[in-house]
Amino acid sequence: MQIAMIEDRMMRVEEVGPEYLDRGLFFGDGVYEVLRSYNGTIFAFEEHLERLANSLAAIEITGIDMGKVRSRVLRAFEQARIANAKIYFHITRGSGLRDHLADKDMRPNFFLTVTELKEDASLKEKGVSVSTYPDIRWKRCDIKSLNLLANVLARNDAKQKGCEEAIFVDEQGLITEGAGSAFFGIVDGKLRTAPLSENILPSITRKYVIKAAGNIGLNVEEKPLQVKEAAKAEELFIAVTTKDIVPVVKFDGQTIGDGRPGKWTKQLIEEFKKFMGS
Amino acid sequence: MQIAMIEDRMMRVEEVGPEYLDRGLFFGDGVYEVLRSYNGTIFAFEEHLERLANSLAAIEITGIDMGKVRSRVLRAFEQARIANAKIYFHITRGSGLRDHLADKDMRPNFFLTVTELKEDASLKEKGVSVSTYPDIRWKRCDIKSLNLLANVLARNDAKQKGCEEAIFVDEQGLITEGAGSAFFGIVDGKLRTAPLSENILPSITRKYVIKAAGNIGLNVEEKPLQVKEAAKAEELFIAVTTKDIVPVVKFDGQTIGDGRPGKWTKQLIEEFKKFMGS
Repeated sequence: MQIAMIEDRMMRVEEVGPEYLDRGLFFGDGVYEVLRSYNGTIFAFEEHLERLANSLAAIEITGIDMGKVRSRVLRAFEQARIANAKIYFHITRGSGLRDHLADKDMRPNFFLTVTELKEDASLKEKGVSVSTYPDIRWKRCDIKSLNLLANVLARNDAKQKGCEEAIFVDEQGLITEGAGSAFFGIVDGKLRTAPLSENILPSITRKYVIKAAGNIGLNVEEKPLQVKEAAKAEELFIAVTTKDIVPVVKFDGQTIGDGRPGKWTKQLIEEFKKFMGS
Repeated sequence: MQIAMIEDRMMRVEEVGPEYLDRGLFFGDGVYEVLRSYNGTIFAFEEHLERLANSLAAIEITGIDMGKVRSRVLRAFEQARIANAKIYFHITRGSGLRDHLADKDMRPNFFLTVTELKEDASLKEKGVSVSTYPDIRWKRCDIKSLNLLANVLARNDAKQKGCEEAIFVDEQGLITEGAGSAFFGIVDGKLRTAPLSENILPSITRKYVIKAAGNIGLNVEEKPLQVKEAAKAEELFIAVTTKDIVPVVKFDGQTIGDGRPGKWTKQLIEEFKKFMGS
């Protein structure tokens, strides 16, 4: 008899629910998105759906009806009645007995949560500390997949160092991005960030930060920061959907600028607010 | 109200079962093992448990009672009454609302299956075809974690090429291992395989292959094969718990040797059988 066991409970394999046989669980064979709303409006919804479609295509999960995804997200968001919400959802290739090769007829699984975003104003006023971590992730970080163990380990390392975010550094000493954010610096009066590639997520917040920079006359250079450049940067900040721009005031224990959010960072935070109705 | 949605079904977040909130699913935050039995005896059981302990320690999942894991595996194996069984199990950090930072008091999740191993004798007699795939995996492949999307993509690519296994090649053109196996070649009369490092799994079958080589007077060199060396090797084979040694007769479309399992490979297969009672 083919047996399954969940904790101490034994059963026939046929009795195991699909939720235990999710390829998302066995292999991380799925992709996800995180959205947020500002005052009742989801921010950059279509761009997130477009990125989702790219992630799905990259790992060849086919047959997803994007209209259905859109309507599910909207339905849950409306039902939740949370003005400033965080919407997480993932789509996995489906459920079945564990085999690297997926059954072609597999039906994808969808899971979503809408939770309240608790915004901490002091983050933006005081800034945060970050620490570096070797970028041990896989080589397709442009895919927003469920393979996130490196990010978990990095974030845990940052926490142990009293930091709010881990910043990934590759083998050449170049910064790629944060464990859950894009990374920016002001160096020689210019905004610096890593260019889009297979090594970083095409962050939607990153795109809006670059747009905001243009609006306020801040030159942008898409070139990765070296660790030593970052430590001596005029200003540093991270950007993430759920918090938009967050100033970084300590980098691996070194104080950035005068230890308070920089002038460009503050201007970008103000400029970013103009997008919030979009 | 905090909302969750599974397919089209909406509910309060508090109503979501822990199986949907598994960190194994959200992040691949867990590790696994695959064991097999020969004629009613689990092969190299203690070595698999030792590797499991190493994987757990590497990602800091603590407080696992290995005696309990051992007794669960044995209980399920005995109950299944399958002489030649494949035992898969994983342990994840636990379940909770999605957050990179895990709650310290989280209780790990355990899931196991025992299924019948269907052995295909022709695999060993005829050998298999393999194709190469860029090693895009993360940099801690020594941890047997649930972050396996690269392996899924590689195996799918191999299937599309009519091959049974994908062989990972790093940026230097060196072979690390297969998507689900260790990789070996006979070059200049010596057994070649990549040395243990953070780039490959410390395969238990690999260890026994090396032991078998010693027993039959075959010299071993732990040095990665270049792709071009592999294509011209005297013999090639892969090794994996569920199939032990499987000859490779085609490598990226190129016939190896005379297109049939090589003499050393056949000797190793015979020698390996002597371990099967252990």
